[in-house]
Amino acid sequence: MRLTRRYHFAASHRLHSQKLSEETNREVYGKCNNPFGHGHDYVLEVSVRGPVDEQTGLVVNLINLDGLVRREVLEDFDHKNINTQIPTFADSVPTTENVALEIRSRLARKWEGTFQDGLPRLERIRLFETRKNIIQVEEHHGR
Amino acid sequence: MRLTRRYHFAASHRLHSQKLSEETNREVYGKCNNPFGHGHDYVLEVSVRGPVDEQTGLVVNLINLDGLVRREVLEDFDHKNINTQIPTFADSVPTTENVALEIRSRLARKWEGTFQDGLPRLERIRLFETRKNIIQVEEHHGR
Amino acid sequence: MRLTRRYHFAASHRLHSQKLSEETNREVYGKCNNPFGHGHDYVLEVSVRGPVDEQTGLVVNLINLDGLVRREVLEDFDHKNINTQIPTFADSVPTTENVALEIRSRLARKWEGTFQDGLPRLERIRLFETRKNIIQVEEHHGR
Amino acid sequence: MRLTRRYHFAASHRLHSQKLSEETNREVYGKCNNPFGHGHDYVLEVSVRGPVDEQTGLVVNLINLDGLVRREVLEDFDHKNINTQIPTFADSVPTTENVALEIRSRLARKWEGTFQDGLPRLERIRLFETRKNIIQVEEHHGR
Amino acid sequence: MRLTRRYHFAASHRLHSQKLSEETNREVYGKCNNPFGHGHDYVLEVSVRGPVDEQTGLVVNLINLDGLVRREVLEDFDHKNINTQIPTFADSVPTTENVALEIRSRLARKWEGTFQDGLPRLERIRLFETRKNIIQVEEHHGR
Amino acid sequence: MRLTRRYHFAASHRLHSQKLSEETNREVYGKCNNPFGHGHDYVLEVSVRGPVDEQTGLVVNLINLDGLVRREVLEDFDHKNINTQIPTFADSVPTTENVALEIRSRLARKWEGTFQDGLPRLERIRLFETRKNIIQVEEHHGR
Repeated sequence: MRLTRRYHFAASHRLHSQKLSEETNREVYGKCNNPFGHGHDYVLEVSVRGPVDEQTGLVVNLINLDGLVRREVLEDFDHKNINTQIPTFADSVPTTENVALEIRSRLARKWEGTFQDGLPRLERIRLFETRKNIIQVEEHHGR
Repeated sequence: MRLTRRYHFAASHRLHSQKLSEETNREVYGKCNNPFGHGHDYVLEVSVRGPVDEQTGLVVNLINLDGLVRREVLEDFDHKNINTQIPTFADSVPTTENVALEIRSRLARKWEGTFQDGLPRLERIRLFETRKNIIQVEEHHGR
Repeated sequence: MRLTRRYHFAASHRLHSQKLSEETNREVYGKCNNPFGHGHDYVLEVSVRGPVDEQTGLVVNLINLDGLVRREVLEDFDHKNINTQIPTFADSVPTTENVALEIRSRLARKWEGTFQDGLPRLERIRLFETRKNIIQVEEHHGR
Repeated sequence: MRLTRRYHFAASHRLHSQKLSEETNREVYGKCNNPFGHGHDYVLEVSVRGPVDEQTGLVVNLINLDGLVRREVLEDFDHKNINTQIPTFADSVPTTENVALEIRSRLARKWEGTFQDGLPRLERIRLFETRKNIIQVEEHHGR
Repeated sequence: MRLTRRYHFAASHRLHSQKLSEETNREVYGKCNNPFGHGHDYVLEVSVRGPVDEQTGLVVNLINLDGLVRREVLEDFDHKNINTQIPTFADSVPTTENVALEIRSRLARKWEGTFQDGLPRLERIRLFETRKNIIQVEEHHGR
Repeated sequence: MRLTRRYHFAASHRLHSQKLSEETNREVYGKCNNPFGHGHDYVLEVSVRGPVDEQTGLVVNLINLDGLVRREVLEDFDHKNINTQIPTFADSVPTTENVALEIRSRLARKWEGTFQDGLPRLERIRLFETRKNIIQVEEHHGR
């Protein structure tokens, strides 16, 4: 069974790759290459898979999950400038793709410490930059 | 090809497990443990997979599907108190997880009688307790 | 200028009037008369009118407004049974209309103590029981 | 990684199968069999899977993807009558199922010419006829 | 106090004025002038103002209001072609403006027969052609 | 009759008043005082009042209205940093209140040149910073 939990954060960013010329940057990123940045209200979905606990009827303790997402993601991203305030993006472009990968890796590295019984497992991250632009990253597990 | 159909019902519930102490109940369920209950507007998605019928251009006859969901789910859950009016929850906690499992089993047990040609098959149930809390149960079929 | 702020709470209720016969109750309230109650995810909009403060660029200090709504409304209504846990509804029917009036009167009686400079003023309450059912109460002021 | 992009178009249609009797048409399609047609605001989701390009941080160049969808789908379907203005539906019923298949085949046949490096690949089409009726078609690739 | 109730209908239309040249029609209505028509999922809001009934706690009996809207509006407009199936539009252009006026006049002419005590009164019609295009018509009463 | 048209733009801003101390800035604006800025997907509603033109059935020519909003508002605000790229905000705080006033004044000063017959008139601006925070500015006309 899969539980999906939805979170929100507002952030600003600028899309500009140091590996591309000024002209190519403008071509590839269009308005998102504006040097002063712009912003979005991101929606983050975290999906977790596991069995239902017989005593509680829950797949995951939401207090633990919400705490993990708050500490590892929301506190750093919400009402922030992603380019200048998230160290990973000092030399990586904060496209929705790369922001989703960063969020996935932040959750993955604290997952086992948070859910010590090995259940549930992180299955999927979805990040909506806007309602029209959605990135999904799945975790691939042993089997 | 998969068809997903969305339904709504409003219901009240209280999360309280007889297998846990009063204190643990409060810890695990928080505000949802309020003894007098509270309520939600649930959204139910039923996903069906099958080939497109050549004559009708449809995966499933929606009159049949809607009738099945109405009789087996909506009539019993809509504008009801889940704890006291759905027998399964006399000794099971009406978490979104358990409500989704109950809905899945209600649809599954009448599926073959309703769609006698074996097509389409029930593939997935999704239950939104709120827009932030979503449970998904997939059916696993022989092949 | 008018600022509108949106809040959410989940609650259960039963519509049943002690001034009407059992039969009339069923006729008037339909499924909402179910004796065990049912529930909704309410959306509350609070609209405030006033001039823009020159120093802050704000119509109202949102910390004050959010605190008022939380203390006077959300803490009492969220994840509660309106009939049994809100004293006003011991002998009044918790229709969306009456719940909106109760919320309006709770905000109005603490308004002047909260916004001591007389600005801004409470202009409108809107309560969405569901997306299809919306009640609006306007404040009428001396001038 | 999967990128999903959402598009909109408004169109009219009538559901009527030449392979069925008048009476069966009315039974199967109900109000949608109205001879003068009716219409919807369709939502189309196109999902694309591929690796993140190291230089751009993108799964797909959105200018290419948006151009392909605009030329192959939106220009022909938006503000059109599907039965009379899309040749495929001269002898096929424009159910959501068949419209989704037509859109999938239009994108597929121009895919390789548009994304010449073989990346990314078309993974899924979802078509919302309304918020309650959703069709999903997945692409099946060699591996 | 004001109650707003939301309804939905799907319909097709073509914008074309017999009082304008072909060329001006194309200029004024753009894609909406397509001779074969197109369609939308309309949202209709009906707002009613009146006092709260002391016995029921309601501004309006929703069974009466829903019945009136269903008989006078939804049965004629839902899943229909507005140009050819609503007589008013034989010689009037079915813009959102004119459709809203027609709906208002249909409700107004049956209002007094439906709500015989003179309460509540019809206050406002809002018609969403799409989420981006909204028409509002207010009723003006004696005082 | 009133027509409302909805537009979108994404922008970043920082709330910081030069007339307040650092400490008061942090108290008043909270997370929005973050020195590196953050961003939102704004929704702008422009409401226009006028009679329905007899020939076209329209309150306003949408090509004119959309062009005005695009030139005066969207081109300057979309994908921009409001503090540094909109001159008004060099010494004014870009709260939703002040952004709404700036948009209103930009539309008002070009209104008469755009709609030379004096019809329709600008009636209301609504700006959604998020779905929870909405500012409304009404125009007051002679009568």
